Amino acid sequence: MAGDNESAVRFGIMGCAGIARKVSRAIRLSPAARLTAVASRSAEKARQFAAENEFPEDARAYGSYEELLDDPAVDAVYVPLPTSLHRQWVAAAARKGKHVLVEKPAALDAAELEEMLGECESNGVQFMDGTMWMHHPRTARMKSLLNDAAQFGDLRWIHTSSTFHGNQYFLENDIRVKPDLDGLGALGDTGWYCIRAILWAFNYQLPKRVTALPGTVFNKDGVILACGSSMDWNDGRLATFYCSFLSHTSMDLSLHGSNGCLQLKDFIIPFQESSASFLLSANVGLNELHTGWTSKPKEFEVVNELPQEALLIEEFSRLVRAIRSSGSPPDPMWPDICLKNQLVLDAVKKSIEQGCKSVELGNMKSSMSLGTNSR
Amino acid sequence: MAGDNESAVRFGIMGCAGIARKVSRAIRLSPAARLTAVASRSAEKARQFAAENEFPEDARAYGSYEELLDDPAVDAVYVPLPTSLHRQWVAAAARKGKHVLVEKPAALDAAELEEMLGECESNGVQFMDGTMWMHHPRTARMKSLLNDAAQFGDLRWIHTSSTFHGNQYFLENDIRVKPDLDGLGALGDTGWYCIRAILWAFNYQLPKRVTALPGTVFNKDGVILACGSSMDWNDGRLATFYCSFLSHTSMDLSLHGSNGCLQLKDFIIPFQESSASFLLSANVGLNELHTGWTSKPKEFEVVNELPQEALLIEEFSRLVRAIRSSGSPPDPMWPDICLKNQLVLDAVKKSIEQGCKSVELGNMKSSMSLGTNSR
Repeated sequence: MAGDNESAVRFGIMGCAGIARKVSRAIRLSPAARLTAVASRSAEKARQFAAENEFPEDARAYGSYEELLDDPAVDAVYVPLPTSLHRQWVAAAARKGKHVLVEKPAALDAAELEEMLGECESNGVQFMDGTMWMHHPRTARMKSLLNDAAQFGDLRWIHTSSTFHGNQYFLENDIRVKPDLDGLGALGDTGWYCIRAILWAFNYQLPKRVTALPGTVFNKDGVILACGSSMDWNDGRLATFYCSFLSHTSMDLSLHGSNGCLQLKDFIIPFQESSASFLLSANVGLNELHTGWTSKPKEFEVVNELPQEALLIEEFSRLVRAIRSSGSPPDPMWPDICLKNQLVLDAVKKSIEQGCKSVELGNMKSSMSLGTNSR
Repeated sequence: MAGDNESAVRFGIMGCAGIARKVSRAIRLSPAARLTAVASRSAEKARQFAAENEFPEDARAYGSYEELLDDPAVDAVYVPLPTSLHRQWVAAAARKGKHVLVEKPAALDAAELEEMLGECESNGVQFMDGTMWMHHPRTARMKSLLNDAAQFGDLRWIHTSSTFHGNQYFLENDIRVKPDLDGLGALGDTGWYCIRAILWAFNYQLPKRVTALPGTVFNKDGVILACGSSMDWNDGRLATFYCSFLSHTSMDLSLHGSNGCLQLKDFIIPFQESSASFLLSANVGLNELHTGWTSKPKEFEVVNELPQEALLIEEFSRLVRAIRSSGSPPDPMWPDICLKNQLVLDAVKKSIEQGCKSVELGNMKSSMSLGTNSR
């Protein structure tokens, strides 16, 4: 059985949100990790969650997050709580020496995230956010094609979207439409992925300028239900994204280079669990009389032995084990990427608040080092 | 042979641009039309064009546009001249009673286009622009799906692009990078199609507001090589487009409704000449644990017996023959659609010139009636 070896990272789950079921399964599937405990505000709910999600017999179910953090058998926590609770509980976990995997959006804003990252750094614990698609082997395969000048050339522009159509119950009751819970709404939930995809494609170079698109849709409490933004690097490179709780499921990512286009419709969650694909057009044009194309886009398929969320757990656990075995400090890459994601998100929000005026990213710079990062 | 019947509309081609070869072939393929004459500034060039493009033996080759317009055997002209010459020659053709099919962009601005349309209207000749994809049966099929509330729901947002990577020769010499020839650059050339697609999808309801995206790329003469824009209807509906001479071939159109998404990558020129397809996702979501989708997008294929440019010729010829047989005035639909296309294009240009400030379309209203048009 996976995760039974001595060196497996022992996870405690803080909260019983729907997404915690998916991540609990991922921990079960990951050889490097083990489900050890779950906490909820009710011990009964925690016990029920553990039973329903195939936790090991000896797993603990706690009626408070504090109890879970006091358990010396827990190495790392997964935090799927509403975003407004992240600062408090990530900081508390770090102070107890627990490594932290936090659901996105990581924080309500970059200042809050920096506090959280500071706590993790000073307590020597690994921080990572739960952006699963980053860990699919398709993502690495696409990156190598983006770096292939002959096939793709220079990346010029990107369009990406992340949308779903929330039903009436969702739009009235979900934590993602409540200003005091996940107050960043669609921007924090689905927009997070779009911003990550753009940063990923541009090697985490922050844009110079972020300019929201007119037409943001808010609910009656002022939470964003749909919005979009452009960003540019002041050198001809451009990206746009759109995120929404009001339109049919889409997870589009279109990357356009001078020599090629790379496109997919399921970048966040692949259509199927065991393999994923993308389309590449490279050096394609029109025939002589412009009555057709010289070729159609080609499909590339990438098989994955573990689901992407289990690969995220594997990567996180690898970093935790490296700290444990060598005593080295946590890897700063994932915290850095997460902070950039949050900085751009803050800029989009600020641009929306300022009537879609452009926000210069230089002015948004955090106190941490955020120079160009090509990892 | 096609176009040999008595009622066939007899076409004269004004100019020997590359696109005129494609349209000459379309006229040859169209049962309702006939290639009758071609004019160039050099009679020799016109003769050569006629020979190379399989004009009938009795077709005339003229060394000036005036001679062609004076030929009583010519019913209609196709005008592929640089945009800066459209006003002069469309007006001249209309005054000679010739029906006018003009290459896009129709004019340098809406005021100029209105003059041209006024000349056509007062001379009782049909006007149409050469936006070929409008005439593919795929377009009508997609429209019927967009109108299907169960499959698609309400249209919420659109993203579309039209790009190609011009080589060095193109970027230095093509008429589309010359301010005095096709001075609207990429916006006029490839952006025209994006704007048309957005208007088409929204039943030709003009947006309330057009807001260019920061980051327009100009050449040394101030011609647009790449730009993008958003537009919105002030009711949560939004569209964005990107057009460029600097990135790999793309002709993407993504239409997003509350219940479905309709997407294609070749909306301007289908990959193949004899059939074309699109993808539809309708009422698709994620599986219970969010580890995959309930289904993949489905491909719909539409077969066409004639290429879309021949279908354009068929439609134009049908309208010309209706005028001829019934003495009725020209159909205003295509001129209206063209003018709206140009009005939005003007607004994008104005927004770019004003540092990406939003341009209210109310202020751009032409003197012609431009209310909501659901055709």
